[in-house]
Amino acid sequence: MHKVIFDTDPGVDDAMALLFLHRHAEIDLIGITSVFGNASIETTTRNALFLKKAWGIAAPVAKGSGETFDTSRPHIDWPTGIHGHDGLGNIDVPDEIGLPLDPRPAHRFIIDIIRANPGEVTLVAVGRMTNLARAVSDDPEIATLVKGVVIMGGAFDVPGNITPAAEANIHGDPEAADIVMRAPWPVTVVGLDVTSRTVMTRAVLAEIAERGGEAARLLADISRFYIAFYEQHVVDGMVVHDSCACAYVVAPELFKTRSGAIRVLCGGIADGQTIQKPDGRIFPPNAWDGQPSQKACIDIDAEAVLKLIGDTLAKG
Amino acid sequence: MHKVIFDTDPGVDDAMALLFLHRHAEIDLIGITSVFGNASIETTTRNALFLKKAWGIAAPVAKGSGETFDTSRPHIDWPTGIHGHDGLGNIDVPDEIGLPLDPRPAHRFIIDIIRANPGEVTLVAVGRMTNLARAVSDDPEIATLVKGVVIMGGAFDVPGNITPAAEANIHGDPEAADIVMRAPWPVTVVGLDVTSRTVMTRAVLAEIAERGGEAARLLADISRFYIAFYEQHVVDGMVVHDSCACAYVVAPELFKTRSGAIRVLCGGIADGQTIQKPDGRIFPPNAWDGQPSQKACIDIDAEAVLKLIGDTLAKG
Ligand SMILES: [Ca+2]
Ligand SMILES: [Ca+2]
Repeated sequence: MHKVIFDTDPGVDDAMALLFLHRHAEIDLIGITSVFGNASIETTTRNALFLKKAWGIAAPVAKGSGETFDTSRPHIDWPTGIHGHDGLGNIDVPDEIGLPLDPRPAHRFIIDIIRANPGEVTLVAVGRMTNLARAVSDDPEIATLVKGVVIMGGAFDVPGNITPAAEANIHGDPEAADIVMRAPWPVTVVGLDVTSRTVMTRAVLAEIAERGGEAARLLADISRFYIAFYEQHVVDGMVVHDSCACAYVVAPELFKTRSGAIRVLCGGIADGQTIQKPDGRIFPPNAWDGQPSQKACIDIDAEAVLKLIGDTLAKG
Repeated sequence: MHKVIFDTDPGVDDAMALLFLHRHAEIDLIGITSVFGNASIETTTRNALFLKKAWGIAAPVAKGSGETFDTSRPHIDWPTGIHGHDGLGNIDVPDEIGLPLDPRPAHRFIIDIIRANPGEVTLVAVGRMTNLARAVSDDPEIATLVKGVVIMGGAFDVPGNITPAAEANIHGDPEAADIVMRAPWPVTVVGLDVTSRTVMTRAVLAEIAERGGEAARLLADISRFYIAFYEQHVVDGMVVHDSCACAYVVAPELFKTRSGAIRVLCGGIADGQTIQKPDGRIFPPNAWDGQPSQKACIDIDAEAVLKLIGDTLAKG
């Protein structure tokens, strides 16, 4: 069993990833931490509670950061054209969910849970990296106590999605992401190199909704708006970015990774770009020297990952 | 026939590229402009004259820039470990060559020759982009009068060579390179994505020296030091970076290109990185918008290019 804390900004593809974690037999979802990104922190936290209630998820929700690690960064508009005004595809999520939050802020929750389960917790982070950066900055020792960190974010050998250089999760808080990459914990980065090739068609999603009961039907409702947005980018369906990171936890053999120090550009026209120095390559002294070797996913068995996700979501 | 001005910082692989241009039947080499990079401007200019004399090249040599476009940039040490203290593999190039220089500075020479041959001149630039940036800044109209610009430099979907992000020619003068990419002339960038896969073995070089007469034997002598350096990077032989750009001029069909605006990062840990926005990809507003579409080489028939180079160099 993988004990997972899910750090998320729901978000449509976040919702799918959450249902995957909830339904996968080898995942023990022990916490959900919210972060701003696809919508404000109030909205993403409300959405996390909404999905917890709708799907009967036991794990507590802790509210996380609502602004970037470097608070002087300018605000980026919420991507309402992708995730809707409510962050969940304009399905009219109620304002009040009627469930309590964990009393701790997300970064403190992360620290406490890792310390309570040394060597056992996998952090799966699929929003901006703010909560993780705050946690490891406040308590650097958790880097040695966590089992692993799996991130959806970044773009290495392919263009970004929010700019030609940068992927949106990393671009949304580059200083935080650079802290996460440079901490001495084992990070696997599941970025656009692999997620953009993992497209679930409308037909497959309809079949999941058919087989997967009410929870899967809600997921299909939530996803409709996002799929309409993606019509300008893919032939048919939904790029399942965040679910790919969850699939990595249980089936790393479906991914090919490359090891090497990773840095995140902070500022300038390529703000938020992720750049890896592949291990074994020789360069003159540079800013990657002395940084920990992390894994970047550079290839994926997309068909097998989609099947894994679909089969898991469709479990009643 | 392709009328070519060769902008170069000889440099070992520059020497090979120069002999290729001199010996290829479809190239009319009408000018050589020197630039600093592999060595100081005094050394690279002296080397250009040395090779002109040794190989009986008719084209005049014009002396170019000895410092970056932004003169406040710090100096980068000459790569004497790659090109030798004399820039030509430590073959003891004489101090005085006894040939005159063109009286004009390189950027003025470039402007004059393009204006005198409207629509006919191809600029092949295989050093830092300083001379080209100065030429097109001083006389922007040459962008519409030149036939094309072919550059050896940059790294798009692969790591750099001077840092994990940047290739040496672009890194040596990023502001100049960004000006060159943004000018409205047709640029083809022959970067590490293709040149690093184009390795001439010692055996092939020995055969060229055997078949190609005294000129080719001098080239083999010059190359020995460079090949020893590359032992840490390739199994056997010499990465023929600069010759690839020359091969592109006569055989573009051996390359696959991708179109899109190209920007060069100036400053920061990825200083000198080249980033392309592929045409047809949709992004929110960004720094690539409104810039001209240029071509980046992303694939090469390396075997055919090596054969083209070898056959041309070996012509007596
Ligand atoms: Ca997300
Ligand atoms: Ca050169």
